[in-house]
Amino acid sequence: MNYTIQVKVMPLKDLLDPQGKAVRNGLDNLGLKGIGDVRIGKNITLQIEADSEEAARAIAEEASKKLLANPVMEYYEIS
Amino acid sequence: MNYTIQVKVMPLKDLLDPQGKAVRNGLDNLGLKGIGDVRIGKNITLQIEADSEEAARAIAEEASKKLLANPVMEYYEIS
Repeated sequence: MNYTIQVKVMPLKDLLDPQGKAVRNGLDNLGLKGIGDVRIGKNITLQIEADSEEAARAIAEEASKKLLANPVMEYYEIS
Repeated sequence: MNYTIQVKVMPLKDLLDPQGKAVRNGLDNLGLKGIGDVRIGKNITLQIEADSEEAARAIAEEASKKLLANPVMEYYEIS
């Protein structure tokens, strides 16, 4: 069966996120009020052919560890 | 109150996603089986100070329209 698995890859909480900071300044300049911290990461949608959802998630987990996320700077969540 | 709003910005379904294609080839080269289409977008976490969750989501909606997503190439989802 074909499963759609979402992987969210975000910068680690302790690290600065210059892209997020730039977007925050941009939103301030547009006059949007109330926006505090902005953090930007990746959202990856994988179509995986597997026998069960658990098998598909295991493949996504392996893909995240091996290629999608850099554990020095990022963490990932599979959903 | 402070709300955490997630905005997912993905390439439109009808458009090619060269970044996703490159990642798919990378996963193939790593020997991961069963992975079909890969699409890569952004995940943006906003901390918003607002009176209610609806107000916070309205601010996130405006931010998405004005800055975060380019409607020619991308769609967004707020969650």
